[in-house]
Amino acid sequence: MARQQRAIRTRRIFLQAAAEVFDEHGYDAATIAAILDRAGLTRGSLYFHFTSKEELARGVLQEAVTSDGVTPQTFKLQEWVDMALLLAYRLPREPLLSASIRLSVDPRARGLFGTRWPDWIVIGTELLTEAKERGELLPHVDPEATSRLVVGAWTGVQLVTESMAEPPDLVAEISALFELILPNAVVPGVLARLDTSPHRAARIMEQQAVAAS
Amino acid sequence: MARQQRAIRTRRIFLQAAAEVFDEHGYDAATIAAILDRAGLTRGSLYFHFTSKEELARGVLQEAVTSDGVTPQTFKLQEWVDMALLLAYRLPREPLLSASIRLSVDPRARGLFGTRWPDWIVIGTELLTEAKERGELLPHVDPEATSRLVVGAWTGVQLVTESMAEPPDLVAEISALFELILPNAVVPGVLARLDTSPHRAARIMEQQAVAAS
Repeated sequence: MARQQRAIRTRRIFLQAAAEVFDEHGYDAATIAAILDRAGLTRGSLYFHFTSKEELARGVLQEAVTSDGVTPQTFKLQEWVDMALLLAYRLPREPLLSASIRLSVDPRARGLFGTRWPDWIVIGTELLTEAKERGELLPHVDPEATSRLVVGAWTGVQLVTESMAEPPDLVAEISALFELILPNAVVPGVLARLDTSPHRAARIMEQQAVAAS
Repeated sequence: MARQQRAIRTRRIFLQAAAEVFDEHGYDAATIAAILDRAGLTRGSLYFHFTSKEELARGVLQEAVTSDGVTPQTFKLQEWVDMALLLAYRLPREPLLSASIRLSVDPRARGLFGTRWPDWIVIGTELLTEAKERGELLPHVDPEATSRLVVGAWTGVQLVTESMAEPPDLVAEISALFELILPNAVVPGVLARLDTSPHRAARIMEQQAVAAS
């Protein structure tokens, strides 16, 4: 068991190191040597877990779709909003998440590994479909089309934000995005009770850190 | 005069060729040889216009911010919508535009040349500011913040759309994006008279082709 836990931890260290190197240099320019150097572990231990740079990239992408931190809420829409806000909060703090976007927008890496956008679209579609069944959404809303648009919008807002000389806070931008789109998708009684505030993500993360400690 | 026109045309051929090569292979992998090959002109004629790959990339980015096709409308908001719809229509048809996005999302090219997103944000802010002065926008709308969000959302919707196995039509996606965001930004009397239909872009392009012929 201890050995298994150590193996999981080692695997994680390599994924983190690979994510950092992909994130800083891009997939093509990333080398196994740089990843080893970053991880501070031996080549033998790397090859026990991953046989190539390709496999590391696949591992990074696999880890990148996560609704960690999202807990059941009175409204399914709140869970959808929470997922997007938490991701905006975590992305600048977690290389695994930013590397996953970098691999997805890099056409060569995308050609090799695809993207995780379809998975995000499915998760959003499921939440929005349930929200619609519960009567939280206006009748004209198409869950799949809306999920797809918001995955795209989220990604682009992140890209444009990080490219700015003085980047605005990503959570605040995503919060503003929801304020722009929700009034035309959500029934009024639910809309008034959704929390889209930029502070929500940090609050959730802190509560969970306290609960876990 | 004939010589000058030929020079403009030659310059344009090289920018087109460079855009196609950047678009297909990315900035790093693009070579002067491939660009020359695509242009079908001599090396001497290339160096008369551009001394390096860097200069070609700068040239491509310079051409990429264009509101060609947008004509004065009763509502300033219609001009803003038209700009976004026309760009969505033209992007899959014009390598200069798609290469510009590819250079902007490539972190290395972005580090060298910056992006054109700030320019798009300025153009949108100006249109939205004028729309607001004319009373077309709801009082809570911040032109700069809204322009920034929509430039981001537009970009991400394009990226996610083009990555899909069966990509939906980009103009239809951008039209749906506007349907999602406009009701919470536009005063009702104007909203009902804005044309955000996906057919609008093709119609404008056809009218202008007829007018020019």
